[in-house]
Amino acid sequence: MNVLIVFAHNEPQSFNAAMKDLAVSELEAQGHRVQVSDLYAMRWNPVASAADFGSRKNPDYLVYALEQRHNYEAGTLAPDIAAEVEKVKWADFILFNFPIYWYGMPAIMKGWIDRVFISGLCYGGRRIYDRGGLAGKRAMLAFSLGGQEHMFGEGAIHGELDLLLRPIQRGMLAYVGLTVLPPFIAWHVPYVTDAARAALLADYRTRLRQLDTLAPLRFARMADFDDTLRPRAVAS
Amino acid sequence: MNVLIVFAHNEPQSFNAAMKDLAVSELEAQGHRVQVSDLYAMRWNPVASAADFGSRKNPDYLVYALEQRHNYEAGTLAPDIAAEVEKVKWADFILFNFPIYWYGMPAIMKGWIDRVFISGLCYGGRRIYDRGGLAGKRAMLAFSLGGQEHMFGEGAIHGELDLLLRPIQRGMLAYVGLTVLPPFIAWHVPYVTDAARAALLADYRTRLRQLDTLAPLRFARMADFDDTLRPRAVAS
Repeated sequence: MNVLIVFAHNEPQSFNAAMKDLAVSELEAQGHRVQVSDLYAMRWNPVASAADFGSRKNPDYLVYALEQRHNYEAGTLAPDIAAEVEKVKWADFILFNFPIYWYGMPAIMKGWIDRVFISGLCYGGRRIYDRGGLAGKRAMLAFSLGGQEHMFGEGAIHGELDLLLRPIQRGMLAYVGLTVLPPFIAWHVPYVTDAARAALLADYRTRLRQLDTLAPLRFARMADFDDTLRPRAVAS
Repeated sequence: MNVLIVFAHNEPQSFNAAMKDLAVSELEAQGHRVQVSDLYAMRWNPVASAADFGSRKNPDYLVYALEQRHNYEAGTLAPDIAAEVEKVKWADFILFNFPIYWYGMPAIMKGWIDRVFISGLCYGGRRIYDRGGLAGKRAMLAFSLGGQEHMFGEGAIHGELDLLLRPIQRGMLAYVGLTVLPPFIAWHVPYVTDAARAALLADYRTRLRQLDTLAPLRFARMADFDDTLRPRAVAS
């Protein structure tokens, strides 16, 4: 399959960089084709603005999603966005590799979503969730965080991790139709020994060998909602 | 009180810009001092990187939070960050005004959090939640979104809005000690009539007159957790 790794870390020697290198070698060894968007190395611009558009549907008032749709159709998206959109279209599997910052992606990666998951191609109207524009492709998060496993869960200090990830896994990935595999989580990375890091990398390699057997996460299905996106009445 | 409005929108004529202007005039009319960080107008850089630090605790390996702490103490944070940190210290109330992008802040604002909510001053070790570095200050989200109210809630197409906001309200704001007021939500803004927009602005003015009477949201309290951040046993 074609794999796109979207990678963001500001330290080239970081654990996340080791995860990225491991994923490239492991997935290529499995016979897949791999492209990496190394956002820091690319000096990726995460700011969604009027400068992203070479033409305008409405030159007097910027509605970002409307201009995404118009510029994609007109072939006038900014070249940095257009190049990433082509990678997304090429990919069968998108892997997001990053350190958790404030229970989300680093801004440089959030801005990749803001600018690359364009209206029209990726979603629009009722073309969301299992009818989203990227349906048929898969995605997975692979991240490090400072916290320890006991700090997450119902009643735990930081609450349920799956709920903290919901805006990403449901609101970004599942929303555009991607089938989302369970995340790979590297706990407590800044504080653990080199041996523990090596063990985490071995776990990551194992995970990368299971991509075809893991059960995906479940999200909304459009068949369960009516034309106003209200839940359909359940037959009694 | 001193109010900092952190504002992000890429269209100067937008509804969010009207909210920002209204908040400035209303809050000044109430006798408060107001500063605005207009992130697009400032061309704010949202990318957390080594360039943020004028000195280094560890020049060979970047641990961003560690260097935030070191550079704040040494007075060597990048000038754009240092200026925002001073505004945060000055503020009694921080208002975040933005359009929801992918169930979160636009990347330009997420990067304001990544770079300005610095380790050491804002949090560290057990100085989180009600013991966070910004305890005693208050904050509120004020945002527009495309969706309608019936699309959010348990069993609704997009799920519970408070859970989609959890990484921001709990993970960013409450985490550093801010007392968080309920969000002001401008529903369905891109699709409503001018009259409906005017009504939303009137609602926002009303909300801005209620800041001292609104009950804040409730989050974790450190007294309920032990030194390892596990929940304390409840006396039976």
